[in-house]
Amino acid sequence: MISYFLVIYGVVIISLLAIIYLVRYIFIQDTGNQSMQQISNAIKEGAMAFIKRQYKTIGILSLLALVIIIFANYFGNISKGSDIAMSTALRIGVAFITGALCSAISGYIGMYIAVNSNLRAAAGAKKGLNNALQIALKGGAVTGLAVTALSLLGVTTLFIAYGGYSGDATLIKEAPSLIIGFGFGASFVALFAQLGGGIYTKAADVGADLVGKVEAGIPEEDPRNPAVVADLVGDNVGDCAGRGADLFESTAAENIGAMILGVALYPIFGWKGILFPLVARAFGIIASIIGIFFVRVKDSEDPMRALKKGYFITSVINLIILFFVVKEMLSGKLSNSSEVNYLLLYGCAAVGVLLGFVFVWITDYYTSITHRPVNEIAKSCETGAGTNIITGISIGMESTALPVIFISLAIFAAYKFGEAALPGIANAGLYGTAIATMGMLSTCAYVLAMDTFGPITDNAGGITEMSGAPEEIRLVTDRLDACGNTTKALTKGYAVGSAALATFLLFSAYLDEVKKILGRSLDSWFSVDIGKPEVFIASFIGAMIVFLFSSTAIRAVGRAAQYVILEVRRQFKEIPGIMEGTAKPDYAKCVDIVTKGALKEMVLPGIIVIATPVIVGILLGKEAAAGFLMITTIAGVIMALFLNNGGGAWDNAKKLIELGHFGGKNSEAHKAGVVGDTVGDPFKDTAGPSLHVLIKLVSTLTLVFVSLFR
Amino acid sequence: MISYFLVIYGVVIISLLAIIYLVRYIFIQDTGNQSMQQISNAIKEGAMAFIKRQYKTIGILSLLALVIIIFANYFGNISKGSDIAMSTALRIGVAFITGALCSAISGYIGMYIAVNSNLRAAAGAKKGLNNALQIALKGGAVTGLAVTALSLLGVTTLFIAYGGYSGDATLIKEAPSLIIGFGFGASFVALFAQLGGGIYTKAADVGADLVGKVEAGIPEEDPRNPAVVADLVGDNVGDCAGRGADLFESTAAENIGAMILGVALYPIFGWKGILFPLVARAFGIIASIIGIFFVRVKDSEDPMRALKKGYFITSVINLIILFFVVKEMLSGKLSNSSEVNYLLLYGCAAVGVLLGFVFVWITDYYTSITHRPVNEIAKSCETGAGTNIITGISIGMESTALPVIFISLAIFAAYKFGEAALPGIANAGLYGTAIATMGMLSTCAYVLAMDTFGPITDNAGGITEMSGAPEEIRLVTDRLDACGNTTKALTKGYAVGSAALATFLLFSAYLDEVKKILGRSLDSWFSVDIGKPEVFIASFIGAMIVFLFSSTAIRAVGRAAQYVILEVRRQFKEIPGIMEGTAKPDYAKCVDIVTKGALKEMVLPGIIVIATPVIVGILLGKEAAAGFLMITTIAGVIMALFLNNGGGAWDNAKKLIELGHFGGKNSEAHKAGVVGDTVGDPFKDTAGPSLHVLIKLVSTLTLVFVSLFR
Repeated sequence: MISYFLVIYGVVIISLLAIIYLVRYIFIQDTGNQSMQQISNAIKEGAMAFIKRQYKTIGILSLLALVIIIFANYFGNISKGSDIAMSTALRIGVAFITGALCSAISGYIGMYIAVNSNLRAAAGAKKGLNNALQIALKGGAVTGLAVTALSLLGVTTLFIAYGGYSGDATLIKEAPSLIIGFGFGASFVALFAQLGGGIYTKAADVGADLVGKVEAGIPEEDPRNPAVVADLVGDNVGDCAGRGADLFESTAAENIGAMILGVALYPIFGWKGILFPLVARAFGIIASIIGIFFVRVKDSEDPMRALKKGYFITSVINLIILFFVVKEMLSGKLSNSSEVNYLLLYGCAAVGVLLGFVFVWITDYYTSITHRPVNEIAKSCETGAGTNIITGISIGMESTALPVIFISLAIFAAYKFGEAALPGIANAGLYGTAIATMGMLSTCAYVLAMDTFGPITDNAGGITEMSGAPEEIRLVTDRLDACGNTTKALTKGYAVGSAALATFLLFSAYLDEVKKILGRSLDSWFSVDIGKPEVFIASFIGAMIVFLFSSTAIRAVGRAAQYVILEVRRQFKEIPGIMEGTAKPDYAKCVDIVTKGALKEMVLPGIIVIATPVIVGILLGKEAAAGFLMITTIAGVIMALFLNNGGGAWDNAKKLIELGHFGGKNSEAHKAGVVGDTVGDPFKDTAGPSLHVLIKLVSTLTLVFVSLFR
Repeated sequence: MISYFLVIYGVVIISLLAIIYLVRYIFIQDTGNQSMQQISNAIKEGAMAFIKRQYKTIGILSLLALVIIIFANYFGNISKGSDIAMSTALRIGVAFITGALCSAISGYIGMYIAVNSNLRAAAGAKKGLNNALQIALKGGAVTGLAVTALSLLGVTTLFIAYGGYSGDATLIKEAPSLIIGFGFGASFVALFAQLGGGIYTKAADVGADLVGKVEAGIPEEDPRNPAVVADLVGDNVGDCAGRGADLFESTAAENIGAMILGVALYPIFGWKGILFPLVARAFGIIASIIGIFFVRVKDSEDPMRALKKGYFITSVINLIILFFVVKEMLSGKLSNSSEVNYLLLYGCAAVGVLLGFVFVWITDYYTSITHRPVNEIAKSCETGAGTNIITGISIGMESTALPVIFISLAIFAAYKFGEAALPGIANAGLYGTAIATMGMLSTCAYVLAMDTFGPITDNAGGITEMSGAPEEIRLVTDRLDACGNTTKALTKGYAVGSAALATFLLFSAYLDEVKKILGRSLDSWFSVDIGKPEVFIASFIGAMIVFLFSSTAIRAVGRAAQYVILEVRRQFKEIPGIMEGTAKPDYAKCVDIVTKGALKEMVLPGIIVIATPVIVGILLGKEAAAGFLMITTIAGVIMALFLNNGGGAWDNAKKLIELGHFGGKNSEAHKAGVVGDTVGDPFKDTAGPSLHVLIKLVSTLTLVFVSLFR
């Protein structure tokens, strides 16, 4: 057992060393001229100011949640005696606060590195494409490694602290259920980080565009626009901090869910079945590090190809490593003394790795300018904004079909593989899907690096633009920026897919918890019968919540944008000389106003999704809560696909027109394209990504509060 | 028993007499001047040409479906012996074709009367508001009565033909399951009628607007536009024929579903429990007739108020009648010889009537210009098309919340009332929800009359406009037209609500059929466990199908509109003198082209929704099909609410601006409003209403093919 823990902590240390190396690499790079530094500093200050204030708000909400969690779990477990109830409640509470803290720390690290890499990537563009790409990708890699390593460290340490290393089977089997608080803490922070960040980034974007481009007639990212820095800050707080927290949660939730399922298979695999997810994750980090250091691009090459190659290498290495990990840890004897078929279990892992690939490929098809959907949307701009919106919405809806079919196939295949590998064992199928989930998320660190690459290059582009850098440098950062837009879209696809798998896992974990509470054997089957009116109603409400949440998230952007618009108008009026370039606008004031607006607007949607499942569980019972959970997941995944892909496709349709197709820039078609882009922004950067978090949050939430349910 | 059948057939005869009276009333009215008649004739010809061609296509598809149904049910039942299998298959087949025919006939009647009433309503506007309103409402009433009476006649006659009057308990109990073919036939025709009609109406509308208003710069409903007649035809084929078929299906499906549940309660209520839905429906028709004849409006009055008053009267009469029907038919003794609490069962019926009210009220709130949502959307037009779309989408999503909560409450209350009324009886709760459904649909004939009122007044407005009638007449028809828009929106809300309830019923009926096939007692419980991977996957696909179907339906409009655009452009180019008004455009050619386009485009979405559930059932089994059914219903209802309410709100936001708010006609805000209206059109008139049909179709479809499922 000790050797596995050594592997895990070893990987954490390796990740730390890699992070130190990467940070040093970034900080020794050239920081460009003074004009660039001024802009970068403004972004840095704005981003840090936002994250500080946001963490304060989230901190207060977390403490409130902590009190509720401890109370709820104390009273939910009071029948077992006051002492046990208190110790259970406290341990879940400690796990919660640890999860929340780790999530916040990884978000902070990601953001800190991003706002320092953007300037260096911009300055590095002088030395060519590869140099700038390396800086941006390595900046992203810090986030990727920090997020996955912290999640691994947190879960493993809590597991040990709660008895996982005691050698006592009862303690080992109990530990995973207590750690679920860690997952909930991570979800809790992620929800607000993603919501707040998502609202911030789009409110600043929309506000800056509406007053700057439309009213004042100045181009995008013009330094005369007081909201332009807020816009650049937004990319960091939305994509870096937000998606970092999102995937932190995914990895944490998936680890814990798989460990809980591992408990059910204790008779066969012993503690190895419980520890397997952590070891698999550890090796995934190693594979990602290798993948990251493999990426190189020639000046003539498409940078996207190089990034995809890195992803491919990471996946292949994972496929190889997973084989040995599965063989080593998931062998054993069944009760009829036949051997477990570990090859089939490895098949599950392979299914997961492949599913990640398929998701990235489908997202690419629907959102990149080289395929039919975006071309069709761009063409529809010729007949106006109305037809553009209709086409975009219908393509967004269409884009939900293939992912759902492939998730379904993957779950089905992994389930059947699991059953075949462990014939006659209850939960075998579910454990198969757990292994598949781990396969998919084994490339997580690399994917996160690609994702954070997006806002860094976006900011680098903004900095070169605003600092008036020469044309050839702008060309380099423009190419990277376009590439970053694609990676952002692709990682969203990956995040939805992994969220779907993770939730299926957590759903099973929830059912196991229910069985324990009801005193039933883990081998028994707890059915969630949608024919019962309570379950049907809960499911109905679960699907509706997805629409209601999306509605509030989208509207929050509009409301927060109003604050920006009013402030920019005020500055144009009250500060003379802005338009002539003789006076500097007050960037900080705009940043401050969006911050306040975004934090105010994130509370309502957050409370809706946190309160509803608890109310449903308390009023309608455990089975109904399971139905709620399941249908929220289904509807949430599909809605997120619709919003992400639709938004991404509109964005690139506009870009396609700007490249000179269908009339080119400033044509009527372009104007129509801009409308689509405006609509798509809150879809793909606020509501969609928040939905990934939502579906996992509902799972961890129900797990934490299950003892309270009727 | 005979007395109940006499009541039913008596009501059918009364309905027939009322229809004859109404038709005579309409045909003796003034038909206006020659110019009006010419336009009306063009609409009539176009509508009739469309429906003939559409019925031919649907006829061919129906025959195909018939063959498949007979084969499937023969082979599905072959284990019972070849003779029984054949007779079952044939009886289901006959029911199917009868349902399809009745649906087609009621659609035809509705359309025929509508295209004759529009001219007379236009001409009647000379004599004042009440006169025109009477003609339009009475025209609508013909559809309402024809649809409900034909559905009642068809189901009752088939019930008798299949042994319902034999006195033989076995035959009586078997009959409802065989009639389900009738419901499927109705759904089948309704799907294509609503899809084809919905695509037609919006393709013509969008096409006419894009070339006429945008390219040629002539106003809406200008006789120089070659597509203007096609546009007016569209209102008839979409709203009359389409919604008529939709509600025909609702009433049929609900009757049959309730009868199947009545079989499960045979030990308590005997055949009365099976016959109750039909008798309740019969009295509902009487109440609606009374309600229709009560509507009167003064010139100074808001016509909407008068129509709502009629709805209120119909509801109250139903509440009174239902009390006596429930008391008479649903009394009996439980096995412990205590009396059935019929008051509680009456409570279920009352819940249903109230739910209808609540749905109409909520729809009114979200789509009428007097409330917050539409005002908020109109205001957002000031900052452009992008913010208009964002606000509209987010309000459409928000509008799903209240209806879902109220359906949930209604189902829950009716279920618990049912259980309390029949303590210890399996299926009691479900029968309670069945009674609630019948309560809601008791006002169906009146609601349908209100609905068909919409296209008649719309056409009347078009005819006065195109014939150059004097200003004061136009004012009258404009007021009625606005009122008709509201009634159309409200009845869509009602249709979604009733579809949701009807499907919950059919779901239960499906489970009963499964129990029979598996040889289990009807008292037993068949669970649909969403924790099983097959069921989960089927559910996932079920929700996705709703998105995919909406996508194809919305896109079909765009494609069909392209045909119109090309044709109008051709006419403008090739027929000299159109723009000067010296030459008449070729209206018929446009009508012809939209017809072909719409019929072509309706096939793909139709096939998707018909094939998927059958494939899911065959591959994944009966339980999975039940999961599919349930989640398709949930997602379908919510999506339909989103599309209908969002579309309706955009429509009225534009109208609000046209009334002089937020800048008024031809302002920038108005242009933004037009974009929202364009987007909303295929939402509310094509995809949304087709979804009502879809969810019922999936239910009847699975019921008809269940014997084939794994």
